Amino acid sequence: MRCFVCKKPTDLKIIRPICKDCFIKLYERKVERLIKKFELIKKGERILVAVSGGKDSLSCAHVLNKLKHLLGFTMECLYIDVGILTCTNERTERVIKKFCEDRKLKLNVVRVKDLLGKKLEKLSKERRRPICSICGVVKRYIMNKFARENGFDKLATGHCADDMVRFFFKNWLGKKFDWIAKLKPIIPSEHPKIVTRIRPLFECTEEENLAYITINNIMIAPCSRCSYFLRRDKWNEILKLIDDKKPDFKINFVKSLEEVELKIKEESKLKECKKCGEPTSEEICAFCKLKK
Amino acid sequence: MRCFVCKKPTDLKIIRPICKDCFIKLYERKVERLIKKFELIKKGERILVAVSGGKDSLSCAHVLNKLKHLLGFTMECLYIDVGILTCTNERTERVIKKFCEDRKLKLNVVRVKDLLGKKLEKLSKERRRPICSICGVVKRYIMNKFARENGFDKLATGHCADDMVRFFFKNWLGKKFDWIAKLKPIIPSEHPKIVTRIRPLFECTEEENLAYITINNIMIAPCSRCSYFLRRDKWNEILKLIDDKKPDFKINFVKSLEEVELKIKEESKLKECKKCGEPTSEEICAFCKLKK
Repeated sequence: MRCFVCKKPTDLKIIRPICKDCFIKLYERKVERLIKKFELIKKGERILVAVSGGKDSLSCAHVLNKLKHLLGFTMECLYIDVGILTCTNERTERVIKKFCEDRKLKLNVVRVKDLLGKKLEKLSKERRRPICSICGVVKRYIMNKFARENGFDKLATGHCADDMVRFFFKNWLGKKFDWIAKLKPIIPSEHPKIVTRIRPLFECTEEENLAYITINNIMIAPCSRCSYFLRRDKWNEILKLIDDKKPDFKINFVKSLEEVELKIKEESKLKECKKCGEPTSEEICAFCKLKK
Repeated sequence: MRCFVCKKPTDLKIIRPICKDCFIKLYERKVERLIKKFELIKKGERILVAVSGGKDSLSCAHVLNKLKHLLGFTMECLYIDVGILTCTNERTERVIKKFCEDRKLKLNVVRVKDLLGKKLEKLSKERRRPICSICGVVKRYIMNKFARENGFDKLATGHCADDMVRFFFKNWLGKKFDWIAKLKPIIPSEHPKIVTRIRPLFECTEEENLAYITINNIMIAPCSRCSYFLRRDKWNEILKLIDDKKPDFKINFVKSLEEVELKIKEESKLKECKKCGEPTSEEICAFCKLKK
């Protein structure tokens, strides 16, 4: 095979044959263009990048770190230790610490146990709710609160095209059109206490992130539990089948997501939680309800 | 297998095992509910049903004919002879004539050759445009003009859930959000010369239509060309794969289509074609451009 850009021989194929050098260039240029097109980051801003140790979030942190001088922003990382042994453990933390040390990036660590007072596994059993759903609530809460309290302008996550397509189908079938309206590269703040979220890898696929990590020799700490749940997910299987038939489906799908505008019902004005003061659509926020 | 409704033994399975009697009842009740929910047809209206001789349009005509007394409307059929031998021929016409005679329905026939002055095959070669695209333009033009000039209140077509899902994906990837906004059970007229279109089979799948036709012993005239193109269509293959994994996908997908509201750009006000007076967004309508 020969690289479709420079014609050099290559073993790598991502939709089309491409050599490692050209892949890295194109990947980084794609992220840079997205950042500029949707004004994800402005000059002088402080960005908090949420890292879990997986391929997507470390790709996000790595590419932003490479673009920060060019685009004139500063960044720090946030690692949330959710305290589920099968998800985050000492190995995860070592991987992330090494990643940040190598790049001289400040790493902030928040431990769920300290905040919640108990382990997520215990909560999950008590509430009879799947642990992944509790983990989601807790992570979103902590990311936003930490970013705001520490004066960051934006919160960046490693959500990629595959995530967006999966979220689209689940929310479409669940008629959650308000959530679909938020499947965008940037979700502007709708409340003074909410930090604007950005998704620099909106147009990158999981396959590209994995290649980016591999070519850059970045060590990752795969979260066995999330991967396990993802593998069992039917939408993941369906997306693989679509990929076989239409390899550019996901990319084209998210490019349409960028442009579509959904009419959403008048949103229930966000209030502040009576217990913790964080923004919520109800009297007590989802996080404090968990703590009760 | 036993029917999930009445528990009688059955060989039929459409997602779930169901006997023929219960299937017919549920199918007709589903169409009736859709008509009422979205006010597709009001009492006293005159409905023109477009029939091609295929399973979908004949299902549509058959079920509407069964519901017309209950819902208090009258109906006639329209058959457009597109003059493509592999699509419509004497056999197609015989099948449709027999269908209408058996039900004492008035059948209107419009021949494209008489209107266009030449055969679609010839036009397709001259314009280097696929014949299916020309056929679509011509049929939409004739259906609307005929319905309006003959005083019908609504134009009914046999478009079903499978069509809606396929159209959705094609238009989504093509960023034709204005077209997606029209993937609804009813498309109200936006111009005095446009007749409101209705899709009574919006929530029915092709599989259900085929079962409905088969159980009712209705003779159909399969259009070999359309079937051929449909089989080659990748979206058709993909939908079959999704069906295997999530048998209720199409139904749930169109139920969301019914509810979603897309913001569409200010539509270019419809004008009247300078040649024929039919509504168009340009100076000369697509039909008259074909004739040039």
